[in-house]
Amino acid sequence: MSKQFDVVVIGGGPGGYVAAIRAAQLGLSTACIESESYADPKGAVRLGGTCLNVGCIPSKALLQSSELFEQATHAFIMHGISAGNVKMDVATMVKRKDNIVDQLTSGIKGLFKKNKVTLLAGHGKFAGRENDRWQVDVSGEIVEATHVIVATGSQARHLPGIPVDNKIICDNVGALSFDTAPRRLGVIGAGVIGLELGSVWKRLGAEVTILEAMPDFLVSADAAVAKEAWKTFTQKQGLSIHLGAKITKVDVSKKGVTVAYELGDEAKVLECDRLIVSVGRIPTTHSIGAETVDLAMTERGFIAVDAHCHTNLPNVWAVGDVVPGPMLAHKSMEEGVMVAECIAGQKGHVNYDVIPWVIYTHPEIAWVGKTEQQLKNEGVEYRVGQIPFTANGRALGQGDTTGFVKMLACAKTDRVLGVHIIGNNASELIAEAVVAMEFNASSEDIARICHAHPTLSETMHESALAVDKRALHF
Amino acid sequence: MSKQFDVVVIGGGPGGYVAAIRAAQLGLSTACIESESYADPKGAVRLGGTCLNVGCIPSKALLQSSELFEQATHAFIMHGISAGNVKMDVATMVKRKDNIVDQLTSGIKGLFKKNKVTLLAGHGKFAGRENDRWQVDVSGEIVEATHVIVATGSQARHLPGIPVDNKIICDNVGALSFDTAPRRLGVIGAGVIGLELGSVWKRLGAEVTILEAMPDFLVSADAAVAKEAWKTFTQKQGLSIHLGAKITKVDVSKKGVTVAYELGDEAKVLECDRLIVSVGRIPTTHSIGAETVDLAMTERGFIAVDAHCHTNLPNVWAVGDVVPGPMLAHKSMEEGVMVAECIAGQKGHVNYDVIPWVIYTHPEIAWVGKTEQQLKNEGVEYRVGQIPFTANGRALGQGDTTGFVKMLACAKTDRVLGVHIIGNNASELIAEAVVAMEFNASSEDIARICHAHPTLSETMHESALAVDKRALHF
Repeated sequence: MSKQFDVVVIGGGPGGYVAAIRAAQLGLSTACIESESYADPKGAVRLGGTCLNVGCIPSKALLQSSELFEQATHAFIMHGISAGNVKMDVATMVKRKDNIVDQLTSGIKGLFKKNKVTLLAGHGKFAGRENDRWQVDVSGEIVEATHVIVATGSQARHLPGIPVDNKIICDNVGALSFDTAPRRLGVIGAGVIGLELGSVWKRLGAEVTILEAMPDFLVSADAAVAKEAWKTFTQKQGLSIHLGAKITKVDVSKKGVTVAYELGDEAKVLECDRLIVSVGRIPTTHSIGAETVDLAMTERGFIAVDAHCHTNLPNVWAVGDVVPGPMLAHKSMEEGVMVAECIAGQKGHVNYDVIPWVIYTHPEIAWVGKTEQQLKNEGVEYRVGQIPFTANGRALGQGDTTGFVKMLACAKTDRVLGVHIIGNNASELIAEAVVAMEFNASSEDIARICHAHPTLSETMHESALAVDKRALHF
Repeated sequence: MSKQFDVVVIGGGPGGYVAAIRAAQLGLSTACIESESYADPKGAVRLGGTCLNVGCIPSKALLQSSELFEQATHAFIMHGISAGNVKMDVATMVKRKDNIVDQLTSGIKGLFKKNKVTLLAGHGKFAGRENDRWQVDVSGEIVEATHVIVATGSQARHLPGIPVDNKIICDNVGALSFDTAPRRLGVIGAGVIGLELGSVWKRLGAEVTILEAMPDFLVSADAAVAKEAWKTFTQKQGLSIHLGAKITKVDVSKKGVTVAYELGDEAKVLECDRLIVSVGRIPTTHSIGAETVDLAMTERGFIAVDAHCHTNLPNVWAVGDVVPGPMLAHKSMEEGVMVAECIAGQKGHVNYDVIPWVIYTHPEIAWVGKTEQQLKNEGVEYRVGQIPFTANGRALGQGDTTGFVKMLACAKTDRVLGVHIIGNNASELIAEAVVAMEFNASSEDIARICHAHPTLSETMHESALAVDKRALHF
């Protein structure tokens, strides 16, 4: 007889492995199918998906190392620290990153054991349905499940005529494992990945040119944040970013890569040693047997789900990058928990209005809720409090006063509608705003909450005071 | 006729200057009296009090510089960064610190102008009361006020027989301006100031010995935090800390300082080049004319106030270190705002149960609410969730996994009663817990709030999940 489970999860990334762990915690017999080994030296299947293996985690490791290098070469002098001949050994940096990934991906296997989740190594796809149970084909072996959660994630979008070999022309996978800092790095796409990886290699000495098809920069961020980011990246840090660039041809030769592109009416050529293609990601829905069971898709190729991530099929759910919504690991995890709880008969829920966004450049960018341009478009009356980090004692102490906190609150109710941060540590500062917004806090609530001195979070406090035009320190 | 004000604030530290700004914002004619010039080169009066001039702000500047030095000498190697001959020029480090202090203290003068607060340079004390108005003597000139706010702060406690000259034997003032790192540094008192300043000079090469009279370490922190801190400071960082040390004699010679002390029955001697005395602070209540107007004091020498910081005298208020409660700048500021709002007829309020504490060692320590030992003593039934940063991807990426987040929640209601953090960035992470506790959040509330990935704040999330024994990543 086939192996039987209450829940089978297809895909072991953040959405999938979290769904599996939560389902198992709730007493459901659970298996998680994963096929990817992400160049594991022993060829073993690795859990954690893109995020852990070739995404968020490794990029943050490289960002940290390169940021320390940047501080050593640029910030030390103001502190009185002298250091001769500062060099980065890229191999050691990459090895450290690999070790972190190894540790975390093994850690998830440990969590599976602890929580009694069965790991099924292989490629999972729908095979059919009999007696109210789903058949799932795991590389040839059929397992049966009452519920199936599809969590197959996403993959880098490639462009026609630009062959990604992950050596010279790379997507996120190859760009995390360069053996040296390229002298001239081209990046197609000024989104999160392009900016983060562009920053890493820029700090290590690369001349970085980013070509972005869109006419505007960081369109999903608040316009004030995007403007500050643009100024910082291009003027202070020397990233060369061209907006409205239309790629016409990419040639690879022994000498490197030649990218022909148009800026308005002007034909341009970028010569670089390596090229990163970071033009978004597409949901991974091929070869999951969607057609076998008539799993419904959206027009844009995502799996169609309702507000509880249930698909058109009974007891079939889908979470994470493979369903509509922001492609963020923490959104996937929340969906994984929701679905596991719904399957167990609980009232799972995700509040999609209060999901934070983070870009790990330096300064970091983070936000939650609505941007000012969204509120304008929606005709919502609002008040703004915006306080720069130059007015913050901790930021001065840290020698890093770039950026600001901007709070948007409803003009009628004072409810906080959005918080936008660009600055050192924005990724951590945003947590306070998320919690506040989950409690439907007013700006006055935050203004009346004690914030430790001296901390960067006092700038959040002051921005709340500023909504009511009563900032104390600005 | 004397100058007339609605409000006169005696003291321009965090409690005083904030009270003055808020009072002025509320339409009250306000003056703030300050006499200290903190060695200003031009002898000008400086606003910001101890905190800004010789406390929180300068210490954080030195902590940042010395932490970067520490990273260069100890952490760079794991990232692949090599740097030859790393040196700290202490004069440049101290100069940077001085510049930050200058900038912020001038900033407050700017805020006074913007908010129309009159700065009265001189020593302020009560002179009497006539026609329902207070007379305040400002270095000989009498001004009149309807309301007086005393915000005279605190000063370092010194010990008999240990003459502080702020060159060889220093309190916080001198210890922030050493011209070189001493080879052997002695510190009396293992409190916040002793640990922070001991850390600064330890990182820069000093052999640091801290003598603490109490038999326990960091008694006001949660015991688990204190234990982790002890282990980290003494074993990993090499701070030599002796608890239960009774100082018997201190001698200063040309060679340095000799501290004789007893550890239990054993007589010991510490030879050091410089000695920091950081054994607490006492309220500054002398020479404010308290006896002239019969201002009531507590047994321990603080100004006695009610829950709204009102004293025994009509329209006389006191805020900050000069009244009972934790000597924290942000507590003083909250009191300053409360009193200004009460004077203006509003309902000012400070929630003393939700005031965060921070110690800026590395790792940082921060907490809010009750410790586990307090809950035990109070007989409150509670549940605990404690998650180490070793389970956090961001902490691994940053190469700094020391410490944990520990959450305490009521066993009956699940309301969060305390959050205790030791780890990198604890000072900023605590803000989320403060906001949550202000909203009377349950641990389940925090468990159900989306936390950005990868961030250290996910450890807060996991600690909330762990309260209910359903951590996802541990």
